[in-house]
Amino acid sequence: MIITEAALGALIARAFERHGMTPHNAAIVAGVVAAAERDGAASHGLLRLDGYIATLNSGWVNGEAVPVVTQPAPAILAVDACNGFAQVALAAAREQAIATARREGLAAICIHDSHHFAALWPDVEPFAERGLIAIAMVNARSRIVIWGGKRKVLGTNPMAFACPRSDGPPVVWDQASSLRAQGEVLKARVEGHAVSEGVGLDAEGVPTTDPAKILDGGSLLPFGAHKGAGIAFMVEVLAAAMTGGRFGFQDDSPKFPGAQTSRAGQFLLLIDPSRGPGGDAPSRIAVLVAMLREAGSDRLPGDERCHRRARAVEDGIAIPDATYAKLCKLAGEEEA
Amino acid sequence: MIITEAALGALIARAFERHGMTPHNAAIVAGVVAAAERDGAASHGLLRLDGYIATLNSGWVNGEAVPVVTQPAPAILAVDACNGFAQVALAAAREQAIATARREGLAAICIHDSHHFAALWPDVEPFAERGLIAIAMVNARSRIVIWGGKRKVLGTNPMAFACPRSDGPPVVWDQASSLRAQGEVLKARVEGHAVSEGVGLDAEGVPTTDPAKILDGGSLLPFGAHKGAGIAFMVEVLAAAMTGGRFGFQDDSPKFPGAQTSRAGQFLLLIDPSRGPGGDAPSRIAVLVAMLREAGSDRLPGDERCHRRARAVEDGIAIPDATYAKLCKLAGEEEA
Repeated sequence: MIITEAALGALIARAFERHGMTPHNAAIVAGVVAAAERDGAASHGLLRLDGYIATLNSGWVNGEAVPVVTQPAPAILAVDACNGFAQVALAAAREQAIATARREGLAAICIHDSHHFAALWPDVEPFAERGLIAIAMVNARSRIVIWGGKRKVLGTNPMAFACPRSDGPPVVWDQASSLRAQGEVLKARVEGHAVSEGVGLDAEGVPTTDPAKILDGGSLLPFGAHKGAGIAFMVEVLAAAMTGGRFGFQDDSPKFPGAQTSRAGQFLLLIDPSRGPGGDAPSRIAVLVAMLREAGSDRLPGDERCHRRARAVEDGIAIPDATYAKLCKLAGEEEA
Repeated sequence: MIITEAALGALIARAFERHGMTPHNAAIVAGVVAAAERDGAASHGLLRLDGYIATLNSGWVNGEAVPVVTQPAPAILAVDACNGFAQVALAAAREQAIATARREGLAAICIHDSHHFAALWPDVEPFAERGLIAIAMVNARSRIVIWGGKRKVLGTNPMAFACPRSDGPPVVWDQASSLRAQGEVLKARVEGHAVSEGVGLDAEGVPTTDPAKILDGGSLLPFGAHKGAGIAFMVEVLAAAMTGGRFGFQDDSPKFPGAQTSRAGQFLLLIDPSRGPGGDAPSRIAVLVAMLREAGSDRLPGDERCHRRARAVEDGIAIPDATYAKLCKLAGEEEA
């Protein structure tokens, strides 16, 4: 089955609407899922659909939430996501945040009481396409153990960065603070093989390569030992303490069977380099990227995604027939 | 030899003054060296003295620089360090930056044409002691290779983070983007042993554990593979492209024999959590830290430094007699 991004997004949105989301909110979240599928970011594409639906059905997230945006300081926007999806909250603040960054030089968006179940690059990339440098951080339910601890406290706490360059699409990276994604450990358990050393600890805080022991009360380890731990800690401080969101260890999703998201917070920083002293930053970033390529970096983060995106725009998005049939069923429609 | 922090700082300052620094600039940089020695951060303490003196003697850095602070946007301060030390530039902007962060909620300090030869925690810790969250990034001459490259482009690009907490000193971390410091590889070469796998590449871009091959035209690798590489790239973009500082690969220190510093840039971000929607962030951070300790994190970043600092304040700083004698000689003084 070949489908355009627009048609796929509209179909996913109709599925979300049938499970308790307003058309406005459904369109935003569906757009992010469709974009991930378009870019070949399968782990955050249609693979997440069941998780979204189960979470909506559980009553844990409010699909009809109407976020409230305030501006408590000249450079700080606050968004109460009202227990809705983080992408809806971000959309509500986006234009005001861009205007703030252009006026002040910087803008922070502090989102709390939000659910983030998608990749993080879709949050930062659009800002870089409009000339801004953007950093995003999201905290989540406890999954990783840091700084010599035995039990998990922080989430996998992803961080993303995007910057504009004059001669191509933005450079964008998006990475979890855990060495490996929870999904990879789940996959190893299903497939019956061990994970690498350094991926996780068991419930006693002892290193293990057994995915079942990591998943059954154990924890993941951060990337880069204490240095990745530092990043994870920073994300928790900015995404939760700064925004007023819940810490990962305050998550109570288990009370809502089927819920797969964390009710937490998100911090975004926007920087307008044209208001700084550096002159034409996008042109200088182009020089930096050219130097990296010349030094042998054949594949920069996002290169593959851009390549797949260009193909999808040209040829459409290929999805398995069974997936399409399921999606139509969720949307309450006959297959086209 | 036991000496107080104040007396040590004053002695180092007199040594700097005899090598071309103004009393004002000498006092600032000497204070940072003495503080590192006080906190037991030996690699950035008196061990760096020869490097400072050799760099001053080479004419590469201007010890008499008078930084120029401007404010190109309401939330952005720019500092032209005028080829002087970064700490002098930061000191010139500090109070204005704090006032900006308190008024706007955020403040960025963009320093360019600066030399940073110290640890980064002394730059962020004082802001957190005054209730702000602070992030600092410094770029430096090419030393690491990222994203599958063969040759170094970025510096070891350190990043530091500090946040206030209600029940103790700030939580502060400070980490290079390389897996290991250049100094550790130098030490391994002197001591004649190999370094671990993953530390570096030789001049052809091939992994090696031979410190000589890493140092002789080779490169260091980032911490955490592509994820640490992402951090190093972000540091280069913000510390150089955003500030107008030189990229690491634009460094021309080899033209000045003896020069050990990089002429580059620095980016600092200050956040006033009391202006955000999160309420009392220092109290929430205290809760987070308590939870980490309860989960088994016995030693948080900075714990050891705080402990040593308390002892040094009580008992003074112990330095070897030979070091003291050398310092007196550099300062042109008789030993006390």
